[in-house]
Amino acid sequence: MQPAFKVLHSDPMSGARSGLLETAHGTIDTPLFCPVGTAATVKSMTPIELSDLGVQMLLCNSYHLYLRPGHGLIKRLGGLHRFMGWDGPILTDSGGYQIRSLSALCEVTDDGVSFRSHIDGSLHRFTPELSMEVQRALGSDIVMVFDECLPYPCRKEQTEGSLHRTTRWARRSKEAFEKSLPEAGEMPLLFGIVQGGFYEDLRLRSLDELCEIGFAGYALGGLSVGEPPELMLQILEAISGRLPPQQARYLMGVGRPQELVEGVFRGIDLFDCVMPTRHARTGELFTRFGRVLIKQSRYLEDDRPIEPGCECFTCRHFSRAYLRHLFLGREILGIRLNTIHNLYYYIELMREIRRSIAEGRFSRFRQQFYAMRKETEE
Amino acid sequence: MQPAFKVLHSDPMSGARSGLLETAHGTIDTPLFCPVGTAATVKSMTPIELSDLGVQMLLCNSYHLYLRPGHGLIKRLGGLHRFMGWDGPILTDSGGYQIRSLSALCEVTDDGVSFRSHIDGSLHRFTPELSMEVQRALGSDIVMVFDECLPYPCRKEQTEGSLHRTTRWARRSKEAFEKSLPEAGEMPLLFGIVQGGFYEDLRLRSLDELCEIGFAGYALGGLSVGEPPELMLQILEAISGRLPPQQARYLMGVGRPQELVEGVFRGIDLFDCVMPTRHARTGELFTRFGRVLIKQSRYLEDDRPIEPGCECFTCRHFSRAYLRHLFLGREILGIRLNTIHNLYYYIELMREIRRSIAEGRFSRFRQQFYAMRKETEE
Repeated sequence: MQPAFKVLHSDPMSGARSGLLETAHGTIDTPLFCPVGTAATVKSMTPIELSDLGVQMLLCNSYHLYLRPGHGLIKRLGGLHRFMGWDGPILTDSGGYQIRSLSALCEVTDDGVSFRSHIDGSLHRFTPELSMEVQRALGSDIVMVFDECLPYPCRKEQTEGSLHRTTRWARRSKEAFEKSLPEAGEMPLLFGIVQGGFYEDLRLRSLDELCEIGFAGYALGGLSVGEPPELMLQILEAISGRLPPQQARYLMGVGRPQELVEGVFRGIDLFDCVMPTRHARTGELFTRFGRVLIKQSRYLEDDRPIEPGCECFTCRHFSRAYLRHLFLGREILGIRLNTIHNLYYYIELMREIRRSIAEGRFSRFRQQFYAMRKETEE
Repeated sequence: MQPAFKVLHSDPMSGARSGLLETAHGTIDTPLFCPVGTAATVKSMTPIELSDLGVQMLLCNSYHLYLRPGHGLIKRLGGLHRFMGWDGPILTDSGGYQIRSLSALCEVTDDGVSFRSHIDGSLHRFTPELSMEVQRALGSDIVMVFDECLPYPCRKEQTEGSLHRTTRWARRSKEAFEKSLPEAGEMPLLFGIVQGGFYEDLRLRSLDELCEIGFAGYALGGLSVGEPPELMLQILEAISGRLPPQQARYLMGVGRPQELVEGVFRGIDLFDCVMPTRHARTGELFTRFGRVLIKQSRYLEDDRPIEPGCECFTCRHFSRAYLRHLFLGREILGIRLNTIHNLYYYIELMREIRRSIAEGRFSRFRQQFYAMRKETEE
């Protein structure tokens, strides 16, 4: 089998690299940011608008789609790509994180996790095998192993027990995944998830155990769960150099623009986060010069675009004053225009990152990224 | 001065006619339906999407824009067209209807109306002069006189008193409007509003008084306010033949697809209504075959488009099952896709009406319109 991932350029001054990841629905450029389409929709956006922005891959949530409308229904309707009208690659998470963060009850045994639906309180049970069944029914291009997510902070003994469970679940996930594959045709990829909380030695042990099982890519899970940002970078620093260099590396659920830059700096290839879309809905807009909180009265009669110089649809057509008006009136168009701008900002940031790596000037790009924010932060 | 309105075709079998209405922002085809952009946005839609659908003119609400963000602000930012990014014609209502239907307090004297804002309870006073000031500040292409709207039912004596007040306000509106006009350049049009409740003699008296003052077009107000549909048609029947034939006729706030057909049948040229956009948000979809209530469980696994054969963006890309899923999840994309379909239905209906009038077969079109709905109504 051809390796799915190929490094094209490595930055001489950092761990940053650019590359290509081949999936059943097309090849993507890395480092890449994936917008989140929780319930088979990136909130407020059509698939065509996402393509036009340059979005290459989406993350969808197995937990949500399992509960509503159900993975069986989506499978009967031809799979998630057809259901939501997106024919690019889709990465699905395993459900573990949402079970922990959204459901009322959550009982973990070695077999799996029992939980109550956040929608109607009904009782459900996820196992590694069910997680694989769900993700395969959806037709995911990148399938994630079922893992246990811990809150922050968490004692070392508990973290260690959970780590071993995650390893056992990773093995069961791989077995179930492999059984589910067709004889021939386009194959999905299975990624392992490194856990181990905020203990470096546990993180490295988790990584060793996963590498022994063997996956098409490796993700870092259980980060960005409420810890101080510097703690995440510390763990990333410790672990990233040890990740297999020939496979894609995915930092799950991250994050802020500076975290993307720092992740890339430490060798990360893939990111996902609800931040650009969620912040759009609360009127928090990203720009190269810092954040714009659109509800502020300073924008009342401000005829300028969100980010002067930005070439997104929103900035080319609408003023801060109009966007503020839409926001205060809770108008859907305001959410749409904010989402378009924020996603454009993220996509463009990653595009510039890839370009700077290819041209051997990522470290300079990183310096400029901070300088521009500092100079003008209001 | 050139007359703004020109009849092109008159249906031999009914009062229906097609024509052209010239405004400062372009010429529109009649009969025309105008979507409502209450707060300077047709909910969930961008201006480009509206143009692409074939929307030719929008209605915006003076009451809402006066309260938020304020007509002065919009004027300082270059007017409503620039503020919302729509360069086609805009018709504004006078504020009278919303004051009646939305504000808590509402005290009417001969001078004007005192009311409390539905947003923050603040006290305001609208007069014919202020209504003109607001609409002129917005830069409206079709300005409506300030009128008093009555609820249904309403006693004859009260209706009569209100009618005379509306006539006096119409005169004051015209005086203030004319004073506001520039020496030269592109001119907005001022329309009178026929009131008189559900009393035919009062309606005719109102019309006579307005014609004496003289307006660029005549609207029927105070209809579709909760009365039985046949009562509205009865009033329409009585009054429509008496409306000046050389000027545009506008049936305000109407309505359902069959009401558009019946309005055109009786000689109406312009319509506006929140129905296609509001119903989109509650999952009530219009089709040639009748309504689709997208939340119904019958659509759970329905892979067909909302309306088989429909060429709108939504029907070309998404299934009823997906739209139902989005609706149940209260996803913004669901509202958008429903709105696109409903507006397309309305725009396409009016396009077919205009075509059938031009080809002298409107009465047959009207029969087919009902036959198609009856045959398949579920």
